[in-house]
Amino acid sequence: MLLTPYDSVNLARLLYLFDIFAAVVFAVSGALVASRKRLDVMGFMWLAVVTGVGGGTLRDLLIGAPVFWVHKNATLLICIGAALLTWLVSRRFIAERALLWFDAAGLAAYATYGAAKALSFGVAPVPAFVMGVLTACAGGIIRDVLAGEPSILMRPELYVTAAALSSGLFVGLALLGLSLPIAGGIAAIAGFTLRGLAIARGWSLPAYND
Amino acid sequence: MLLTPYDSVNLARLLYLFDIFAAVVFAVSGALVASRKRLDVMGFMWLAVVTGVGGGTLRDLLIGAPVFWVHKNATLLICIGAALLTWLVSRRFIAERALLWFDAAGLAAYATYGAAKALSFGVAPVPAFVMGVLTACAGGIIRDVLAGEPSILMRPELYVTAAALSSGLFVGLALLGLSLPIAGGIAAIAGFTLRGLAIARGWSLPAYND
Amino acid sequence: MLLTPYDSVNLARLLYLFDIFAAVVFAVSGALVASRKRLDVMGFMWLAVVTGVGGGTLRDLLIGAPVFWVHKNATLLICIGAALLTWLVSRRFIAERALLWFDAAGLAAYATYGAAKALSFGVAPVPAFVMGVLTACAGGIIRDVLAGEPSILMRPELYVTAAALSSGLFVGLALLGLSLPIAGGIAAIAGFTLRGLAIARGWSLPAYND
Repeated sequence: MLLTPYDSVNLARLLYLFDIFAAVVFAVSGALVASRKRLDVMGFMWLAVVTGVGGGTLRDLLIGAPVFWVHKNATLLICIGAALLTWLVSRRFIAERALLWFDAAGLAAYATYGAAKALSFGVAPVPAFVMGVLTACAGGIIRDVLAGEPSILMRPELYVTAAALSSGLFVGLALLGLSLPIAGGIAAIAGFTLRGLAIARGWSLPAYND
Repeated sequence: MLLTPYDSVNLARLLYLFDIFAAVVFAVSGALVASRKRLDVMGFMWLAVVTGVGGGTLRDLLIGAPVFWVHKNATLLICIGAALLTWLVSRRFIAERALLWFDAAGLAAYATYGAAKALSFGVAPVPAFVMGVLTACAGGIIRDVLAGEPSILMRPELYVTAAALSSGLFVGLALLGLSLPIAGGIAAIAGFTLRGLAIARGWSLPAYND
Repeated sequence: MLLTPYDSVNLARLLYLFDIFAAVVFAVSGALVASRKRLDVMGFMWLAVVTGVGGGTLRDLLIGAPVFWVHKNATLLICIGAALLTWLVSRRFIAERALLWFDAAGLAAYATYGAAKALSFGVAPVPAFVMGVLTACAGGIIRDVLAGEPSILMRPELYVTAAALSSGLFVGLALLGLSLPIAGGIAAIAGFTLRGLAIARGWSLPAYND
């Protein structure tokens, strides 16, 4: 299988939208943690930026790509803007429940996009799968560590699992030769569905019991 | 605006002194956390190194520069020396109050230097501003996470804000075409002044209140 | 002293075995923390991967080498396999005492290997020494931070010290011109012995006492 960085212009455009969308959703989730911790406005911005771009930053460092937000102003401005908006409108006007669903969409989008970007840089399939999971989850994990909250990892909520489903499906379907936009669509929808079911029905993985 | 890596030899020399100075101050602040936590001498060295070089390391990885302490021995030796000295002279002989002021100077110096280095590597203005803040604050944040202390982020003390003032002013003045040594001087003094006022008068940003 | 990346084919082969061995041992130690925290199976895999490859990843990013697990599938599969095995056989069947000794061997192997790899990339001696310590300890530190446990750094158990002995001895002996396999053998045995004595006799460094 050969994947060029811009295998499909349509896919690239779609993924770019996914990317912005996920950055906004994650930035807001960082700002909401800042509001719960009653931080000042700098804390809002810092947590929003770290959560919004953390996962993709780690991915780019690991695969040897230029870090995606370093050579343009837009990504950071969007994250900082999302932080200020959250700070202004106050937590009471943002429905945490709605955000949970947007976050699920961001998670699936980032996991799929992360795996696709890794493959396009010639990363082997298993590490590419891990890159998808990292892209989707690392921002939230860094946010929780910085805020001193128990991290996503500690909660058995099918969060990491949903990211793994999107990322794994995309890598698998791409290896099978499926066209990339179709593989990406299937992968993103599958991860979103699993996460959505976990939110709606309270599904979780069994905790370890020795 | 075009910035070459060595736009001004005088600026480069001045910034090199800033750099060593800030590394020493931050290394001592890491060793003091180790003394408060009653670590052994290895813990002193580890926290001193991480705090002294952490912010600049993250900056260099993100902008794609070779990490500044990897190809020479001096930087690490200075940090390790600062740790051993702190360990030997005991905390009682280091006035925490004096260190607070040195730390303020290190903060302003690193924030200015970080933004300047990022611009000289062709980073866009908004990310260059963030790099300045990162260079100044990330070492202390990593120190706090490793030591299990509530991080700078959680305290509304105009710490990150002072770094943002220095970094933002430098980027803004450089974009306006000011000569770099003058822009750097103004930026560093402004950040130091703001942080100094926060120390002297207990200023802080209002915490979030929904 | 000139070190080519493959100064000695035998050394390279030996170090490769060290590498796989240490990754497995550290991955199991990550999975054991997951079992103590009663995480789900995704948490097992995540902590195993982070602990198994974390230190070497940081080293490679810092010295500017391609990250060692990104272009092959084997390393991650081994870590994930170790996590699943630990999850299946249950903690009761893994003797923590035995693991402590394997971990000591992994520590000495990784510290020696990390310093050797850094020197082979032209890193200066003091940073190369730090890279050895980082390779051996950073995975465990990240594991403890993610799991919310007090990190190795906080315990005066001659853990970091044993890594520093292996790494420092290797760099020193290599600088003195000793053949690398011999330097590596001496360094690894010395670190393992020190760590072993600490385990067997409960040795530790004195905590700071002001």
